[in-house]
Amino acid sequence: MPIISDDELSRRRHEILVGARRCFAQFGYEGATVRRLEEETGKSRGAIFHHFGDKESLFLALARQDAARQAEVVANNGLVEVMREILSSPERHEWLATRLEIASLLRTDPNFRSRWKDQQSILNQAVRDRLRSKAETGRIRDDVDIEVLGTFLETFMDGFISRLARGDSEGLEHVLQLVEQAIRTKAV
Amino acid sequence: MPIISDDELSRRRHEILVGARRCFAQFGYEGATVRRLEEETGKSRGAIFHHFGDKESLFLALARQDAARQAEVVANNGLVEVMREILSSPERHEWLATRLEIASLLRTDPNFRSRWKDQQSILNQAVRDRLRSKAETGRIRDDVDIEVLGTFLETFMDGFISRLARGDSEGLEHVLQLVEQAIRTKAV
Repeated sequence: MPIISDDELSRRRHEILVGARRCFAQFGYEGATVRRLEEETGKSRGAIFHHFGDKESLFLALARQDAARQAEVVANNGLVEVMREILSSPERHEWLATRLEIASLLRTDPNFRSRWKDQQSILNQAVRDRLRSKAETGRIRDDVDIEVLGTFLETFMDGFISRLARGDSEGLEHVLQLVEQAIRTKAV
Repeated sequence: MPIISDDELSRRRHEILVGARRCFAQFGYEGATVRRLEEETGKSRGAIFHHFGDKESLFLALARQDAARQAEVVANNGLVEVMREILSSPERHEWLATRLEIASLLRTDPNFRSRWKDQQSILNQAVRDRLRSKAETGRIRDDVDIEVLGTFLETFMDGFISRLARGDSEGLEHVLQLVEQAIRTKAV
């Protein structure tokens, strides 16, 4: 058996993620069968599950990829900026809709729920870190707990994603300004 | 064939709706098969579809029932109060989760989308009427269009429902206060 370089392994892993994202976007979580994952990634089921264990882990790896990217945007510009970027790149909506499908899985499968929460924690942490640092410079309202502000932003983003998943993005740009204002220190 | 009174017809219709709601809550939209709908409603498929035409129409009738009830609450106490009531009656969450499942149907089926929008319009109208009447007495901020305030509230409620559907209601009560403040006239 030939020795495969780390670069090559990393490249294959990347290709599987790209194809799997397309597959989940197009067919949904349940609809992304092993056969379809093979077709979209151009890899055998053996190769796919060598890298990611099972379909659930593959899905969670994509969620983690998103969370990590979004955490970077949050660190620099906040969660509202993440939503603005989503609005300006509609080609990613399809995959976001797939995230709605897993709501019942999250509710009914404690193991999946705990793994999901783990993947999201990098983003949640980034949101709270950003709020805390903004609070220190007096640019975030201090009459409400950081945790409440964080949950407010995250809940709004859940709704934002639901709307886009339904193909309903009308008026969301203006609404984002309102969300930003809601957490800012009031101008005197 | 015996003549059935209007009262009796209305009673049967009601029984079907109650059973169907339970069925959709338990099995989801796709999982609510005709056989399961028969079991949960205690009615034959002939009776069910005599009243509601098809599964899609039955589902939309339930959505309309919710929208009408919520529109009443909105008229008296606003959309945030609707969310408070949902928080205090967790037994209704399961059905709400089913509404997430139809996101892809809404995106991909223009006919379903148009019927859904029609069912929701009574609620959307109530939200805007309430905001307009509050604006007239100066209790709602006037620097933002009513339409934007309405979309803000509705988008937040979508996120609120997503969270509950995932079994994640932590901290939502405090967040609701923030939502209310965001649309109110600022205290001077």
